[in-house]
Amino acid sequence: MAVPEIHFCRRCGHAVEQRVPPMEDRLRAVCPNCGYIDYVNPINVVGTVPVWQHEDGQPRILLCRRAIQPRRGYWTLPAGFMEVGETAAEGAARETREEAGAHIELEGLFSVLDAVHVRQVHLFYRARLLDLDLEPGPETIENALVRIDEIPWAALSFHSVRRVLQDWVADHRAGAFGVHTGTVEHRR
Amino acid sequence: MAVPEIHFCRRCGHAVEQRVPPMEDRLRAVCPNCGYIDYVNPINVVGTVPVWQHEDGQPRILLCRRAIQPRRGYWTLPAGFMEVGETAAEGAARETREEAGAHIELEGLFSVLDAVHVRQVHLFYRARLLDLDLEPGPETIENALVRIDEIPWAALSFHSVRRVLQDWVADHRAGAFGVHTGTVEHRR
Repeated sequence: MAVPEIHFCRRCGHAVEQRVPPMEDRLRAVCPNCGYIDYVNPINVVGTVPVWQHEDGQPRILLCRRAIQPRRGYWTLPAGFMEVGETAAEGAARETREEAGAHIELEGLFSVLDAVHVRQVHLFYRARLLDLDLEPGPETIENALVRIDEIPWAALSFHSVRRVLQDWVADHRAGAFGVHTGTVEHRR
Repeated sequence: MAVPEIHFCRRCGHAVEQRVPPMEDRLRAVCPNCGYIDYVNPINVVGTVPVWQHEDGQPRILLCRRAIQPRRGYWTLPAGFMEVGETAAEGAARETREEAGAHIELEGLFSVLDAVHVRQVHLFYRARLLDLDLEPGPETIENALVRIDEIPWAALSFHSVRRVLQDWVADHRAGAFGVHTGTVEHRR
């Protein structure tokens, strides 16, 4: 697979060539001037399923309505790109703070989903909301705490969010949470 | 955190600037000419724990002795960088073919380990060896099938390999395999 978005060397600025490097088996953007190889690899999206244990016995799930494209106006779980310098779990907690102002305690890995055609792996963690003080960030129009029977299935942002919520509801009903893997399309 | 290795725009070749883009909170390599933002994110290393169910009842684990740096000459599990166009599991199976010529059947996600300081996440899968036809690839000096009491703990390549093997041995002894998460240093 060629790498069309790379035309120049990040390191020296020379025009790159599409070439199969020695000991490799696929095209890379290789700089003929300084030898730098600009590898492109899938990146991780990290997020949480933040849950409030309501006194009525019915859990409430924290959702965010997206203020940005793609899928502006649709509902999502808090999630975003993992950054350098953090663990996947730390990134998931950071996104939950940034998009909902939520205070959470992480409870464990829940989903590892491949979104091959967008070059992503989505990692979701279960989380316990510590309080109900929420503050939507700049990427969020509003937050909502929904019962299982209130999940807006037709207005979810991405297929991975739908998949994570489906697995969460099934595990909640079964009374035991596992770790789920699979492959998803990008859009719902 | 600055991104010292990026000096020029991949897209247009202009010198980049370290700048905090609008709506973000950290420095990125931003092109003042075309506006391209060169994001740097952690990448995934994917691998397997390939096991042969020997007729003596003692499983054999497939290891590879590294023919390349870093840690040339040390023992590792088959693993390498996840590529665009594949799932994490497909990447793990590919690396197992490339480094050992092994024919395997994947059995499920086993480890998700953060290696923060090298900007990596390591995902390992359990795998069943289908036969004993092995063929070390160019990155491998030799392959070995070792009993649990033969694992060369002092000659393992990386801390993540040690951690995965420790967890595998513990789960094997307990008679049940889980999914393990944690943080590791790069070197053993």
